[in-house]
Amino acid sequence: MPQEDQPNPGVQLYNVLLILVDMMVFFAKATYNIVMSLVHLVAPPEAEDISQDVVLITGAGHGMGKCLALQYAAFGTTVVCVDINEKTNSETVTEIKQGGGKAFGYICDVTSRAQIVEMVQKVKQQVGVVTILVNNAGIMPTHPLLQQTEQEISKTFQINVMAHFWLIQTLLPDMIQKNRGHIVALSSVAGLVGFKNLVPYCGTKFAVRGIMEALAEEIRADPRKPNIKFTSIYPYMVDTGLCKRPHTRFPELMKMVKPEDAAAAIIDAQRRGLVEASIPKYLLYLNTFMRNFPLKNGQLLGDFLDTGVNSDL
Amino acid sequence: MPQEDQPNPGVQLYNVLLILVDMMVFFAKATYNIVMSLVHLVAPPEAEDISQDVVLITGAGHGMGKCLALQYAAFGTTVVCVDINEKTNSETVTEIKQGGGKAFGYICDVTSRAQIVEMVQKVKQQVGVVTILVNNAGIMPTHPLLQQTEQEISKTFQINVMAHFWLIQTLLPDMIQKNRGHIVALSSVAGLVGFKNLVPYCGTKFAVRGIMEALAEEIRADPRKPNIKFTSIYPYMVDTGLCKRPHTRFPELMKMVKPEDAAAAIIDAQRRGLVEASIPKYLLYLNTFMRNFPLKNGQLLGDFLDTGVNSDL
Repeated sequence: MPQEDQPNPGVQLYNVLLILVDMMVFFAKATYNIVMSLVHLVAPPEAEDISQDVVLITGAGHGMGKCLALQYAAFGTTVVCVDINEKTNSETVTEIKQGGGKAFGYICDVTSRAQIVEMVQKVKQQVGVVTILVNNAGIMPTHPLLQQTEQEISKTFQINVMAHFWLIQTLLPDMIQKNRGHIVALSSVAGLVGFKNLVPYCGTKFAVRGIMEALAEEIRADPRKPNIKFTSIYPYMVDTGLCKRPHTRFPELMKMVKPEDAAAAIIDAQRRGLVEASIPKYLLYLNTFMRNFPLKNGQLLGDFLDTGVNSDL
Repeated sequence: MPQEDQPNPGVQLYNVLLILVDMMVFFAKATYNIVMSLVHLVAPPEAEDISQDVVLITGAGHGMGKCLALQYAAFGTTVVCVDINEKTNSETVTEIKQGGGKAFGYICDVTSRAQIVEMVQKVKQQVGVVTILVNNAGIMPTHPLLQQTEQEISKTFQINVMAHFWLIQTLLPDMIQKNRGHIVALSSVAGLVGFKNLVPYCGTKFAVRGIMEALAEEIRADPRKPNIKFTSIYPYMVDTGLCKRPHTRFPELMKMVKPEDAAAAIIDAQRRGLVEASIPKYLLYLNTFMRNFPLKNGQLLGDFLDTGVNSDL
């Protein structure tokens, strides 16, 4: 290397000192974060008031989406119910209105970006700026990969992943402008761990996890420092009809969660600004712990618990 | 609960004993797995002979795919080169043949399931049963999510994810019948951690990780116990032209990997039957370690290392 490419000793020393100082700051901040996480385990961060917010929920006609809509309305939040099924969607809207809540219904096939753009324009005119988006709609074909059709796999990705992109792309700019926004995504425990009979579904739910983490990182790096929060939810089995043939060795330990209870847990996680939460809560910690060990140990635990879903064919 | 639903004390005792025995077996096996993992850190499992195998590589006309094709051929493996670009693909085939290797070229748009089915039929007739599949082809649009077009995002999923499904669905049945098969998937460090400017790409690479884990689990549960192996690869930045504007604070620690070196690492991981490997190797361990801490600490480390890709717009 030519002599002139070597920085002089003073600059070298300065660079080394800079890195040492950065390392000390890193360890100080990292320790603070760990302490705060432990504190939050016993005393979670305060839940935000969401009575002035507008929440848009996909798949609001059924299951967890319907429960989310009803419970958000009970907090005073204005609820925009979106579903492809006009009948069930308007039932949710009617129930909310009968309970004294504020609700608006929109029919939309969330796999069509064009329909989403059109729907969001109407929502903006008729309701206002959406400040909370809950990407909830999803499907779960449950059989071996070699028995899943091209159409089935494509549709699973269209609804479970692509719809998230189209809704985020359409709603995020106004959230940034208003400097208030929260994006909630329904991933799954199948987005943390691979399960048989759910290969494409696991692909979509892992994808959602990656998308949420990358987007949070992108917004964090945005020089405007927009006040946008992200919450990823990993439910285990929720009794919504999606999960048709579940099995588990310890029904008391891993029982089907009621959609009402899942919705309450999701809204609580959103209001407290948690980055991620599983339902039940311990599964996220269990997964983190098990990932320190060889994958085979995770498989052993899976075999011991003997839990999963059987093929619906 | 009615009296007759309660099992008698003998059955209850038997069930508790069964669970206790299962737990002891679990801990014994888990300990064995941990010990073997540590042993494999210093003495990796033996590399398999692959001279009698047929490997199919997507994206063989360029970058890592080309290097993989050339290096597999040097091991005596019969190489099926697949690419959408006829010129570059036939260049790879010619280079292999000139070096005395066995190579066959097929032009195929891997986003089309129909084209894949047709191509695989020809390969079966003209070359034989593919025993190693390397799902390598991929694209990486690098800019903020709000600047990515619908077409761009869809295409990223078509190439980086859906093509994996179509190739696996088409090739796996013959692997199972032959009772010899290995599926290698190119995920990415962006499939372990979310990066800005790469939101859809991260989604695809997380998806690949989930698909591989779920499929491995599905095959493990198959009563035929087929001899099919799975290897997921997480490269960091490889100098193939995909990664246009990388930056890093410590160029010596996190330098761009040469595609030749990445290909050698991939083939080594495949031959040794590793379930997963990052390139460089330490990043997978670093990610596993950091995941024990709050996500904010991972962000701090990212800020300290200051590494990633800038927008290409």
